[in-house]
Amino acid sequence: MPEQGNRRVVIVGAGFAGLSATRALSGESVDVTLIDRSNHHLFQPLLYQVASAALNPSDIAVPIRRILRNQKNATVLLADVKRIEPSRREVMTNQGPISYDHLVLACGATHSYFGNDHWAQHAPGLKSLDDATDIRSRILYAFEAAEREPDPTKRAAWLTFVVIGAGPTGVELAGALAEIAFRILVHDFRRIDPRDARVLLLEGRRVLPPYSEESADSARHQLESLGVEVREQTLVTGIDDAGVSIGDERIEARTVLWAAGVQASPVGASLGTETDRAGRVVVEPDLSLTGFPEVFVIGDMCRFEQDGALVPGVAPAAMQAGRHAAQNLLRRVNGQPTLPFHYVDKGSLATIGRAAAVAEVAGMHLSGLIAWLAWLGIHIFFLIGFRNRSLVLFEWAWAYLTHQRGIRLITGDVAERVRSGHADRNPTVGDERDPEDTSRVDRS
Amino acid sequence: MPEQGNRRVVIVGAGFAGLSATRALSGESVDVTLIDRSNHHLFQPLLYQVASAALNPSDIAVPIRRILRNQKNATVLLADVKRIEPSRREVMTNQGPISYDHLVLACGATHSYFGNDHWAQHAPGLKSLDDATDIRSRILYAFEAAEREPDPTKRAAWLTFVVIGAGPTGVELAGALAEIAFRILVHDFRRIDPRDARVLLLEGRRVLPPYSEESADSARHQLESLGVEVREQTLVTGIDDAGVSIGDERIEARTVLWAAGVQASPVGASLGTETDRAGRVVVEPDLSLTGFPEVFVIGDMCRFEQDGALVPGVAPAAMQAGRHAAQNLLRRVNGQPTLPFHYVDKGSLATIGRAAAVAEVAGMHLSGLIAWLAWLGIHIFFLIGFRNRSLVLFEWAWAYLTHQRGIRLITGDVAERVRSGHADRNPTVGDERDPEDTSRVDRS
Repeated sequence: MPEQGNRRVVIVGAGFAGLSATRALSGESVDVTLIDRSNHHLFQPLLYQVASAALNPSDIAVPIRRILRNQKNATVLLADVKRIEPSRREVMTNQGPISYDHLVLACGATHSYFGNDHWAQHAPGLKSLDDATDIRSRILYAFEAAEREPDPTKRAAWLTFVVIGAGPTGVELAGALAEIAFRILVHDFRRIDPRDARVLLLEGRRVLPPYSEESADSARHQLESLGVEVREQTLVTGIDDAGVSIGDERIEARTVLWAAGVQASPVGASLGTETDRAGRVVVEPDLSLTGFPEVFVIGDMCRFEQDGALVPGVAPAAMQAGRHAAQNLLRRVNGQPTLPFHYVDKGSLATIGRAAAVAEVAGMHLSGLIAWLAWLGIHIFFLIGFRNRSLVLFEWAWAYLTHQRGIRLITGDVAERVRSGHADRNPTVGDERDPEDTSRVDRS
Repeated sequence: MPEQGNRRVVIVGAGFAGLSATRALSGESVDVTLIDRSNHHLFQPLLYQVASAALNPSDIAVPIRRILRNQKNATVLLADVKRIEPSRREVMTNQGPISYDHLVLACGATHSYFGNDHWAQHAPGLKSLDDATDIRSRILYAFEAAEREPDPTKRAAWLTFVVIGAGPTGVELAGALAEIAFRILVHDFRRIDPRDARVLLLEGRRVLPPYSEESADSARHQLESLGVEVREQTLVTGIDDAGVSIGDERIEARTVLWAAGVQASPVGASLGTETDRAGRVVVEPDLSLTGFPEVFVIGDMCRFEQDGALVPGVAPAAMQAGRHAAQNLLRRVNGQPTLPFHYVDKGSLATIGRAAAVAEVAGMHLSGLIAWLAWLGIHIFFLIGFRNRSLVLFEWAWAYLTHQRGIRLITGDVAERVRSGHADRNPTVGDERDPEDTSRVDRS
């Protein structure tokens, strides 16, 4: 039995890492407080499907309380963690400080604009449900604005979509954009042909950097078949509300999406220990924090090297680390030595579009339909909840059979700005005219 | 054949009235421009189901372009109509003016706070998808805030929900709130018991004013069985960020919802013709505007009396008027006299909760399970699209069998304020503490 003063476990973050750690402590004689600033666990690998109007937010998000309702030793707290005071063993939140005996930090990562934070307003990234519905609204709004724009140059800018960064998220977003423009919206407009749209995928290195050359070639080929213009070795030097600059070259585009870089949560830096350039916390082999063995740091905010390479920021790695941190935490509670973490790579998968994907599993490189089916099956399997699995399967079957995307809604801030005409606040709704403007809407 | 200068039809608003008018003009030799400030048609009778986390926004909203993709004479324009210049035959939008030969106005209605517009920020109403997801986030956030609130008085205020107005929307919202508190969330919290919540339904007259006494009695009884405190003949005299005042009485409540009054769109007043107290435009028997026979005003923004009573602001009336206005418009195009409108009342239905409803059809007053089944069937039948019908059926079956609500997501502004701690902007997130605050979060 652990002593009384050794039982308070605080876990920060209910992503794959933090949630796996929490569940691994189920039934153990510890008191777990799981803190997150959202009320839901998000299945991030499918977030781009919400951004591209294929899935509903609730298909890929489940209330944390719902997941843990039967885990009696877990209390869920909605709060925003600002920093950690490891020497006082306190988590500082916007709801006041919380003391711990053991801490598991799994705060994840956010976008990084490589020092160009002013790009954020013009090129939103994709990390939360609100990001996804905002990007969805921007994409759909661009076609609406093009439909009513009489000037051909301006119309072309509304119909140009640039995705920056060709990692899995960028590849998936570009593929989805191509499907929307070239297949799904084709019959819905009267003045524009959505097939006139351009979808550009810009990447500083090459497509899918962590994958093999063979998979990258296949992904590039599949993207180009869908109509995406793939440009590798291309460094963006400027982004503003009208487009993207690449050195002297200029691409006029009203919709620019950012999928290029991630930065670990700033909570990591507040620990005062060693971090790398991306803000990831360097940890000991047992995932604990140097000098603070009662603190474990896992998931996307942790830097863990194995066999000379970084453990990647993917869901399977986060889940394995979550379970391992929980085990080590229990070993400490029980006075046992901790064990080193070892990541087991089960393979990589990235989807590109309808029946298009690449996979690297057990040394095999798959692509096309078979990789896409593997991707489908695995993602449905790991979704939480029977309801969600059924609905996602329904949405995918529906989209596949009908070439439709069911969630084509413009909502939130973008919709609000359509109404209010507050043009200056969002580049994608930037050309609202004054009602007194005497220029006519082209009704031809 | 109509002459060239007689073919331009502009329809404002893609609700039930405007959309029905548009579809009734399909295949006719007129050019229809349908203007709406949203990109979707909304099935408003189910909006409260989105607000109460039972349905997804996309279950009850369909892109207008999708509905009209095969109607070649219809162009959809996303724009906000500011006012009409009937003498110049122009619609003034935030995208510039648009000329018409024939105009159908169906701009609908919005909330009315009876001159107390400052109540709006404390007691949001339910008219759009964004309203619905905002109310959903507020309701769910209130339970989260109660869970972490150590002070019993403050906690009780977070657990008190007030719905003002007991028309169909108010009754439905109150019933849904009771289900959420007393059934759905019961096992999800550790420090509070959601069953300690209070749900109050306040009404100045009596429950379901347009229904018979018999139906009202039944609705009141069913609401009380669900745990709702129904208070009739109760006039609210004040609303602020901490609660509601009724004369000298005070109810401390952090979540107040407004379902008491509607006001016709201000576009109606811009016509310069006669309107009633609620801003509805008084129309001729053929639904045209007095003095401007080329303008038809229909739906919730029109005042139409029949047999000494107002035609109610319900979907069937709007759809009938939409079809009738389209017919009269075509008669005018073809030089025929217009016909007077006659509303056919097919009955009324209001739902209260799981297996609870009231219905008045063909002189019969139904209640309970049979009325609820009728309500279910009719609402699924009139939803647009097979996909939506299937998904809504799935969601309802799921909710019915499992006592769950699948869409329990806190998103948007409320979620943003959780993170930023901008407490002052929203009464439901009003007690964020400073991270430096030394008071502890109660972890008992």
